[in-house]
Amino acid sequence: MTVLLRHYDMEGPGDARGLAGALAALPPGRLRRIAVLGKTEGTATLNDFSRDLAIAATQAALGGREATLIFSTGCEGVITPHGTLIVEMETARDPAGPARLALGVAATAPIPVEEYGGRGHALAVAEAVRRAMADAGATAEQVALVLVKSPVLPRRHLATLPPERAARAGSTPTSRAVAALGAGIALGEVAEDRVTDAAILRDGSLHSRRVMAFSGTELSHCEVILLANVPGAGGDLVMATEPLADIIDAPALMRLARRVGLQPDGEGLFTTSAPEALLLKVGVRPGGALRGRRTTVFESELDPDKHMRPVASGMVGALFGTTRVFISGGSEQQAPPGGGLAAMITRAA
Amino acid sequence: MTVLLRHYDMEGPGDARGLAGALAALPPGRLRRIAVLGKTEGTATLNDFSRDLAIAATQAALGGREATLIFSTGCEGVITPHGTLIVEMETARDPAGPARLALGVAATAPIPVEEYGGRGHALAVAEAVRRAMADAGATAEQVALVLVKSPVLPRRHLATLPPERAARAGSTPTSRAVAALGAGIALGEVAEDRVTDAAILRDGSLHSRRVMAFSGTELSHCEVILLANVPGAGGDLVMATEPLADIIDAPALMRLARRVGLQPDGEGLFTTSAPEALLLKVGVRPGGALRGRRTTVFESELDPDKHMRPVASGMVGALFGTTRVFISGGSEQQAPPGGGLAAMITRAA
Amino acid sequence: MTVLLRHYDMEGPGDARGLAGALAALPPGRLRRIAVLGKTEGTATLNDFSRDLAIAATQAALGGREATLIFSTGCEGVITPHGTLIVEMETARDPAGPARLALGVAATAPIPVEEYGGRGHALAVAEAVRRAMADAGATAEQVALVLVKSPVLPRRHLATLPPERAARAGSTPTSRAVAALGAGIALGEVAEDRVTDAAILRDGSLHSRRVMAFSGTELSHCEVILLANVPGAGGDLVMATEPLADIIDAPALMRLARRVGLQPDGEGLFTTSAPEALLLKVGVRPGGALRGRRTTVFESELDPDKHMRPVASGMVGALFGTTRVFISGGSEQQAPPGGGLAAMITRAA
Amino acid sequence: MTVLLRHYDMEGPGDARGLAGALAALPPGRLRRIAVLGKTEGTATLNDFSRDLAIAATQAALGGREATLIFSTGCEGVITPHGTLIVEMETARDPAGPARLALGVAATAPIPVEEYGGRGHALAVAEAVRRAMADAGATAEQVALVLVKSPVLPRRHLATLPPERAARAGSTPTSRAVAALGAGIALGEVAEDRVTDAAILRDGSLHSRRVMAFSGTELSHCEVILLANVPGAGGDLVMATEPLADIIDAPALMRLARRVGLQPDGEGLFTTSAPEALLLKVGVRPGGALRGRRTTVFESELDPDKHMRPVASGMVGALFGTTRVFISGGSEQQAPPGGGLAAMITRAA
Repeated sequence: MTVLLRHYDMEGPGDARGLAGALAALPPGRLRRIAVLGKTEGTATLNDFSRDLAIAATQAALGGREATLIFSTGCEGVITPHGTLIVEMETARDPAGPARLALGVAATAPIPVEEYGGRGHALAVAEAVRRAMADAGATAEQVALVLVKSPVLPRRHLATLPPERAARAGSTPTSRAVAALGAGIALGEVAEDRVTDAAILRDGSLHSRRVMAFSGTELSHCEVILLANVPGAGGDLVMATEPLADIIDAPALMRLARRVGLQPDGEGLFTTSAPEALLLKVGVRPGGALRGRRTTVFESELDPDKHMRPVASGMVGALFGTTRVFISGGSEQQAPPGGGLAAMITRAA
Repeated sequence: MTVLLRHYDMEGPGDARGLAGALAALPPGRLRRIAVLGKTEGTATLNDFSRDLAIAATQAALGGREATLIFSTGCEGVITPHGTLIVEMETARDPAGPARLALGVAATAPIPVEEYGGRGHALAVAEAVRRAMADAGATAEQVALVLVKSPVLPRRHLATLPPERAARAGSTPTSRAVAALGAGIALGEVAEDRVTDAAILRDGSLHSRRVMAFSGTELSHCEVILLANVPGAGGDLVMATEPLADIIDAPALMRLARRVGLQPDGEGLFTTSAPEALLLKVGVRPGGALRGRRTTVFESELDPDKHMRPVASGMVGALFGTTRVFISGGSEQQAPPGGGLAAMITRAA
Repeated sequence: MTVLLRHYDMEGPGDARGLAGALAALPPGRLRRIAVLGKTEGTATLNDFSRDLAIAATQAALGGREATLIFSTGCEGVITPHGTLIVEMETARDPAGPARLALGVAATAPIPVEEYGGRGHALAVAEAVRRAMADAGATAEQVALVLVKSPVLPRRHLATLPPERAARAGSTPTSRAVAALGAGIALGEVAEDRVTDAAILRDGSLHSRRVMAFSGTELSHCEVILLANVPGAGGDLVMATEPLADIIDAPALMRLARRVGLQPDGEGLFTTSAPEALLLKVGVRPGGALRGRRTTVFESELDPDKHMRPVASGMVGALFGTTRVFISGGSEQQAPPGGGLAAMITRAA
Repeated sequence: MTVLLRHYDMEGPGDARGLAGALAALPPGRLRRIAVLGKTEGTATLNDFSRDLAIAATQAALGGREATLIFSTGCEGVITPHGTLIVEMETARDPAGPARLALGVAATAPIPVEEYGGRGHALAVAEAVRRAMADAGATAEQVALVLVKSPVLPRRHLATLPPERAARAGSTPTSRAVAALGAGIALGEVAEDRVTDAAILRDGSLHSRRVMAFSGTELSHCEVILLANVPGAGGDLVMATEPLADIIDAPALMRLARRVGLQPDGEGLFTTSAPEALLLKVGVRPGGALRGRRTTVFESELDPDKHMRPVASGMVGALFGTTRVFISGGSEQQAPPGGGLAAMITRAA
């Protein structure tokens, strides 16, 4: 059940040549499971069709192999557009072996339009995350990170809904929030009875701790990719996470780097020993204040995510000297307000 | 001749209440010189009139006092919109005293439209920088940093010019480039005879080393603010600079911090001992590659500066834990292609 | 009580030279009332400060004279940025005279934050419009057009409000909707008891017929400019309006032109006899369909107003051959969904 | 050789279901030639990948049939995203028959990078247009309209070119200009010896009269679709064009409508008898003045095309009551500066 990672840079959202090459070069043996995580460029506006292109190209490169895809649009700053192939090879598990990276996937049924952004949506995610745990053979405690892709209703379908329902169904932050709460329920981090329609996006004390949630209008169900450190999973990869207090919480990233065994360089930074994978979810407190001072994150012509992504890429570039990082803005109920989450995959020593 | 610094945060480009307060609270004594450096929010598009508003509000707060103003638009990322008042109080200089911060200002005559962006423009800047050195009582060697604001011809006036001349006169990068080369001539860093029309923006080996250049359509001449470490200048401020190899050159910033005596925190970062002022000019190599990988800095719907500013703010936030930083994108001929410059003002030990 | 109109083109939002010139050239006699209507350029994004600049420049040109100002940002397409000075000179009214243009103004008290966008906000507008009618000496039937400027809470203040209240208080469409309903109550076009919080933006059958509503974050109260055809008002101007069935309802504009006596040109258009003033409010049905076909008005990277304004400017340019037109997008409860309103001032025959 | 037209609306750039349906419903008989003209939505920014998606979907719908595709991005305003299938069925030509619509296509070889935007590029287009005339069996006089798609070098490849060459090779206006001049040479409207590198985009007296030119970074050669009225071509379609003096030249559109036999409605407009197809190329004079007044077409945050397209859609909507129109901005050397071109296909009486 060895998990392998392969990154490939992309010349554009439709460029899946690197994926095709990585698949072709996999070691012989049976693939049990494939997931692809994409960090692609695009305007991320209502008329950004880059994700459709990316998914079509990815599926063509997969050549009929089944795979779970989560694509996140937006490479502002110094983020290199890239994809990450995660495959799990079928090998015998030795339950006495060390904890190593395992992969599980699952999907919900289509979310009924009247449940978009509400408790029902969250419960559907919880159920899918439980199945993904089973798929990975992992307990809740062993889970390192859950990635959930969750639907938002396209603008053209909103006009027919009552205003409050349209507000929820068409909201990217709401979609991320319910996905995070649902996954948090499955992981035992969020009390199911507190996940009410009224709490969503409002009760900042309620949040998952090992979840990154994404939304998109291109799907009507939720997709789950789950990574866990499971004894005997095989291979040599392990994953760890660390909460970020805010979007410039460099000490948290450095603690995480040391914890997973990265070697500091002469400056105490980690520019000479990058992790196998680095994922960040970042947020800024509503109102935009950071460290007691005003920012314009929520008060400009740019979507807040277009402030957050490049900021985080600057922090990662500074500390790790790399641009190949998966960064996503919007940490609603994936962390306390304004907080975030960092995750690293490294080779076990 | 003691130089004093006062920062004030701004609720919007027209908010100069902090400046008025800072002026009112200055210690008694005669002001020899005032400069105001503004980092203000705005779209930075052709129809961004925020700088007009900022300058009007600043002049109202100055209440008739003469001052040199350089405003730079764009606080994307986690940059707090703010202004910095730099005043020099009249005190007796003791030439035997230690080198301390001194201020000089100067302005060129209006640049003739036919010289915009060409060698003549650069020579006018060189001459003004020499006068600013004299004003500060500084030699070229003592100069720490020159800030030059340089004109760009507004779009509506370009239609009447021949195409090549319009291309130069209306170009923000060209305006910054000639200003930097002009200042570099005055500082002895750039050979005057190599500053030809053909070299501008093309000869990457030709660059100043202690200059930050800005452009704007709101002026038709150049403004110069010069800061130098002059023996006997009085006060307790000193300034130092360090070139940045690229936009995520954290080690350079850390070297500079140590050189000026900032104390590292437990992580080896400088989040507990911020400098009195931190200024950055950053750039990305044409084509957009960074550390060998692709970025979309020059290939998106956003102006490249809207990638660069938030990236640098993320690096500064990570290393120094602050959002009150003056960051400007576009390092044409202020550094080798893709490079930049960092400057810090600190209190002498 | 003769009303005079003076248009002046603007080189930028801060250019009020034309206003100063128009004021200086007014015929001798006492000014009873001044209103200024501005159609100014800008990005109309959260960080567009052009309106502050326009208002400051306008007030400087007014030189202490009291005036009611309504500025509307956005000249996309072929709209010439311009202002319109409306002054009423004090002359004796002859009640037996013909109906001519009269001007009334009024303002509400600041709207309490908890009432922004709700019934209380609408009732405050209704009361102010009644006072503006009295100011103009006009009955509800004599009113030709009411222009209302209504507040929106700036983004930075929304973070402290409960979500539903923030949604209302920070919404431009809601602010326009309540202003229109309030004015409609005063004009007898809207039944006061039907203006409930639940009806706002939802009950499309409820709308005023002679109101154009605008919103802005720069004020916390509402301003009203009211124009009426009052017997004996003096002068030679008259005003008429016509509803627009949709944003390309050219026949309605042509009917209005003929009704007010404009002479068609050889093509049956009105390119040789422009009205003294032309104002349009335009909208597109939620969902974006027009004449049974899809448009991308609500599905692009652009604010819907940036689609609507240039479209209407193209229609006006085509029919009237002019670019000096006051066009505003967003006809919420100023017309049935997707409808609009056209108003013309002409000289009485 | 009967030419048939089929329009199909699109829900997004990747929606070619209407094309598939139209192809399936073609009358039996042999297809000699297929062309597809697409007017699709998208941001039209450097990171707009919608055209790739549209072309992939179109090719899938074509199912291996050879076709010439010209897609133009941008449906701002009230333009319904749509495609137009143009097919020519093989039938016997009767040279004595009436002049009817005929179709010809051609393509150039890839344009060498060093010729992008220069005379060589224009001459390659001229040669291809001559072949398209032969393909249609048309003389230059019989040609109604030539559509040329012409390459622009993607931004990432520009960094390696000398600045002047990069400026030309990466310029959308230049690419359109040389394509128009090349086609103009072939049609005998432009003197070949006047098409020098220095004249391109500068000599406003030099322009084609029956050409619409488009550019894109997705191709490196030029594609030509040529439509002509050829005696005996069969079918019942005919095409006519009319120059537009400016972007609001409604009388020209009305003249064209009458000339092709459309019936005016009660207002003298043509809202009840739309043409089979309506294509517009529009421009605004450099500097942005229109009818003697300022516009902000070249002085805003929006690309000039995002002003022009919706303006023209408003004019067409007003006069013809339709949103299914092919509108493209940028009339460089396809008309005198600021001018444009309208083309209509109608059924012969």
